[in-house]
Amino acid sequence: MSLVEHFRHEDTPSAEVERREALYGPLGDSVRALVDATIRTELDEVAVRAATAEVEAVVARLRASQIDGAYGLRYNAEGRSWGWGNAVVGIRNGLAPPLATHRAESGAMYAELALGAAYEGAPGLLHTGVGAMLLDHIMGETASGAVRVTFTGTLTMRCLRGTPLGPIRLDARVDRIEGPKVYVLATLSDPDGVAMESDGVFIVPRWARPED
Amino acid sequence: MSLVEHFRHEDTPSAEVERREALYGPLGDSVRALVDATIRTELDEVAVRAATAEVEAVVARLRASQIDGAYGLRYNAEGRSWGWGNAVVGIRNGLAPPLATHRAESGAMYAELALGAAYEGAPGLLHTGVGAMLLDHIMGETASGAVRVTFTGTLTMRCLRGTPLGPIRLDARVDRIEGPKVYVLATLSDPDGVAMESDGVFIVPRWARPED
Repeated sequence: MSLVEHFRHEDTPSAEVERREALYGPLGDSVRALVDATIRTELDEVAVRAATAEVEAVVARLRASQIDGAYGLRYNAEGRSWGWGNAVVGIRNGLAPPLATHRAESGAMYAELALGAAYEGAPGLLHTGVGAMLLDHIMGETASGAVRVTFTGTLTMRCLRGTPLGPIRLDARVDRIEGPKVYVLATLSDPDGVAMESDGVFIVPRWARPED
Repeated sequence: MSLVEHFRHEDTPSAEVERREALYGPLGDSVRALVDATIRTELDEVAVRAATAEVEAVVARLRASQIDGAYGLRYNAEGRSWGWGNAVVGIRNGLAPPLATHRAESGAMYAELALGAAYEGAPGLLHTGVGAMLLDHIMGETASGAVRVTFTGTLTMRCLRGTPLGPIRLDARVDRIEGPKVYVLATLSDPDGVAMESDGVFIVPRWARPED
């Protein structure tokens, strides 16, 4: 499928989108809890085999009617869009924390969240790659918010120290814009301060640039 | 908990580690399938609510006996180690693809895997942050393999173009070592060639450096 086929216009009124959000959000949350419990359980063999069989049965039922491929990004005539499968912000995606991003009046963005056992890299610490993933995402949203559509060009990330699992905060802001390039700065902080910092160049794709 | 507490020595013979791997691996796989099915299902409201309740019931049972906090990295007297909760390679972690890395005789590392709906960013494409996460992980393993213990210092990632969801390959190799710094180069490729490239500096922590 081409990229464009994944941008789906749906004739779904926003009220119906909200009803579905209230339906699928709890399913996504239950899957997140299952990911965590699967890592941490100490049940015996019989119980673990029974749990496996039950999860497989739920999967088979859910798959009885499913879309082909990935969820994509959907939007309706009211200007509402939803990408519920997204790896970082998708409410239907058990991998996504999901990140809830906020935009300040200045255009700067931030997010606060707590990350548990599923996001571990070095023992007891946030996986630095997960930190990179979250930074990439909020930086991309910050860049897109400034100029509409961007894709990650270059991302540089510095780890000042390890980040213990637990509460973190992400902050991102546009440093400057030069033609189709949006320069973004960001940090990942834990209660002791900044643990990772990042700068990135996000690019407005050729098809989204004003004609010149 | 301190970092060191998460490195747990266990008096578990390797044969028993393998038995547990065969038990928990399928549970992790079923959770991965559930993450995918939760994104893609089109079942009606009644069926989705029923699935949510069943997943919550499995979670409650698994949590009846569980460890505090994250899984950490465990090792036994036979020199075997296992980090089954790891966000990228953990077999018990439904978020982890899980990445299976291979080391060539040269010390270079590679991995081949297929990524589906759960790893989506821009519609139909691999989330660039997921690409960064996978690159960070295999580059860290490559650096550690060369000098024993390293942590990510700086990571720079360039996206040459979008990567469609589907089969990808990661390649990483040590470029050079200068004192406690290991310089690593890596690429992420899809069937059309290299889509992302990365260079990183990985640091041997002070406590793991030879005394001077």
